[in-house]
Amino acid sequence: MKSDIDRLMRERKLDAIIVTGGEEFNSARYYLSNGAQITHGSVFKLRDKPALLVCSRMELEEAQKSGLNVKTDVELGYYDRLKEAESDAIRAAALHWSDILRHLGLQEGRIGLYGTWQINKTIALYQVLRAELPAYVFVVEEKATLIEAAMLTKDADEIARLRWVAERSNQAMAVAWETIANLRAEGDYLLDDAGGRVTIGAIKGLVRRELMARGLEDTNMIFAQGRDAGFPHSRGEADMPLRLGQSIVFDLFPREMGGGYHHDMTRTWCVGYAPPEIKAAYDTVIKAFDVAVEAYGLNKPTHLMQEAVLDFFEAAGHPTARSDSGAMEGYIHSAGHGVGIEIHEGPSISHLRHDDSFQIGNVLTIEPGLYYPERGYGVRVEDLFIIDENGELVSLTPFRKDLVIPLKRADGQPQ
Amino acid sequence: MKSDIDRLMRERKLDAIIVTGGEEFNSARYYLSNGAQITHGSVFKLRDKPALLVCSRMELEEAQKSGLNVKTDVELGYYDRLKEAESDAIRAAALHWSDILRHLGLQEGRIGLYGTWQINKTIALYQVLRAELPAYVFVVEEKATLIEAAMLTKDADEIARLRWVAERSNQAMAVAWETIANLRAEGDYLLDDAGGRVTIGAIKGLVRRELMARGLEDTNMIFAQGRDAGFPHSRGEADMPLRLGQSIVFDLFPREMGGGYHHDMTRTWCVGYAPPEIKAAYDTVIKAFDVAVEAYGLNKPTHLMQEAVLDFFEAAGHPTARSDSGAMEGYIHSAGHGVGIEIHEGPSISHLRHDDSFQIGNVLTIEPGLYYPERGYGVRVEDLFIIDENGELVSLTPFRKDLVIPLKRADGQPQ
Repeated sequence: MKSDIDRLMRERKLDAIIVTGGEEFNSARYYLSNGAQITHGSVFKLRDKPALLVCSRMELEEAQKSGLNVKTDVELGYYDRLKEAESDAIRAAALHWSDILRHLGLQEGRIGLYGTWQINKTIALYQVLRAELPAYVFVVEEKATLIEAAMLTKDADEIARLRWVAERSNQAMAVAWETIANLRAEGDYLLDDAGGRVTIGAIKGLVRRELMARGLEDTNMIFAQGRDAGFPHSRGEADMPLRLGQSIVFDLFPREMGGGYHHDMTRTWCVGYAPPEIKAAYDTVIKAFDVAVEAYGLNKPTHLMQEAVLDFFEAAGHPTARSDSGAMEGYIHSAGHGVGIEIHEGPSISHLRHDDSFQIGNVLTIEPGLYYPERGYGVRVEDLFIIDENGELVSLTPFRKDLVIPLKRADGQPQ
Repeated sequence: MKSDIDRLMRERKLDAIIVTGGEEFNSARYYLSNGAQITHGSVFKLRDKPALLVCSRMELEEAQKSGLNVKTDVELGYYDRLKEAESDAIRAAALHWSDILRHLGLQEGRIGLYGTWQINKTIALYQVLRAELPAYVFVVEEKATLIEAAMLTKDADEIARLRWVAERSNQAMAVAWETIANLRAEGDYLLDDAGGRVTIGAIKGLVRRELMARGLEDTNMIFAQGRDAGFPHSRGEADMPLRLGQSIVFDLFPREMGGGYHHDMTRTWCVGYAPPEIKAAYDTVIKAFDVAVEAYGLNKPTHLMQEAVLDFFEAAGHPTARSDSGAMEGYIHSAGHGVGIEIHEGPSISHLRHDDSFQIGNVLTIEPGLYYPERGYGVRVEDLFIIDENGELVSLTPFRKDLVIPLKRADGQPQ
């Protein structure tokens, strides 16, 4: 968690960290600046010292919401450096950073660089930093970066926010269920009040409105039906009408409005009825979900959870990404992943990575699935869990795990 | 525009380009993959050859929507390389890229790297690429990258999408105007139907719903009142009630749902009446807007537009970022910027950058403003323009430029 940063700096022998980036949403900058809504600006932190946020004068007031020490780039002489660098923004940034580091009292040392930025510009900056600031070593970290390592566990404030998002995400999914259950069927299709066929786009629009009414924003939900559901990350076709008896993978992973903490939950639905093959696959996935939960143990390596799920699916006769690394059907992803400001964070729960073990403060999904696109279906079930202060795995996703949405009215009449 | 890429590669002596990145929205990858909704995957393009999109098997179906040649990383042996690299994802990626480049027939050459990614991982990858792939030179570009240079001008499809977004953005702002005009005043405050004070958060919520109903998404609009309006990028306080006679800077810059092209427009409003000082500043900004438009000329250097605006504001007695690079009030930003998949693209319209001239296909804002936070106000007016095929500057922002929103009903009674 954030309070681990000085310890992590010590362990990694870092004298300072710098978090920077462009205008894109930048989870590391969001994290270090406590959610301030800035699109320019960098955080500088020396070990065991308070952080300094250097911002554009355009964003001074937003930057001050970080609660950090704040200075504008103007105050710290950026425009003099820009002139000196003949408007070369990369070189000016490097010189400006040197000024800031000396202002903070660091004459030399090892520095970690984080954030998100354009790849070409990052490499250009790295080259200039090495050439112009020889007193500092810019350190590349293997595996998890310091920021990723800090984000691995959440503090009480973060858990409270994750619970808030979870509650509202579950509510929005419930509205989708209820809305579909109250539609009228005609043949294989579902009709709205005006007699038009209800599409995936209409359901997504409804869910987005329900999220927004609760202070959340959609981040490109998956609502994929039939063959599309057989590809884990197909978003679903907006124009496709909902049909009875098809598998629908509904993966909802909204976040706080404007950027912030996520929820992540998936249900698989069949409207009206489930064909036997889909029902059988669903029952297998529910068992795999239980296998994963049972494989949990505090301090246990996370890859053992994935291996338990792989063992189970393989014993049940399904191809997996372990039995065939090129598999395009069966169980072809990991058992879960961490969730926070990013939708995919640590810990990883993969047989290919042996870095992590379950820790108090982890927030993670468990999400087994089976995918058979050529047979026209896919199934996934996903809850979000926290590992609480007692080391217990606690679900934040109480939403019902029923495969079939029974239609409440037959032949156009409410029952 | 996109059809310039081969020419730009020739001019920059690039044999190939690679666009990659993490899960964040990545404008370069969105652009090269024609809007495919992928969160993993990289585009490889040799000069004068069609592009190849290499995706995760989880996203195969989304990737195919790009219209590009598509292969999965599995097909191209990624997992063998991951095993060889002992699960070191960075080293595996470098080896995998080498396989792909040879698969495409490039044994050696100069390569441009683009996209958006974590800074620490980008530097790590760059180091491994240099060490492991000595046959290739990874080229850093000064000033605008090849992708930025291509994006500088928009083709007919892009202009059509920008027009579509513009029309809907103007509509959403009109709803906000009408809603405010129909509120009831009580003292300095504005009341909703339930008698509560209308807040900035309520207006933002309304606008977000109106955008969503039109297929757009908010990207953190500015609706900043009073002193907040005096900081160009203050977002505005959700809990702050609207008040009569305060300047409100309303900067709306939504994009197509799920990522895509933006609009960008700003109006400054005073509800009920405008105090004389704000009215005078507003009239000055409107004149500055006209000065900027008159300074436009096809092929003319863009910095001359900013210099015309600076001359005008300085002659009118206002501090500027040119007269005092540390200025915190007056006119403290540039006259405009390009707009597209990113909200801030080229061309720049700054006195500090002399790289660009106005070209057919540019899409740009003109947005002079005056900021006096200590006097409790700020003013900005912004339209989005295209430079059409005749070289004419054409506004996409017809929305009225009235400072005062007159209230339609007095004392609670509709007029």
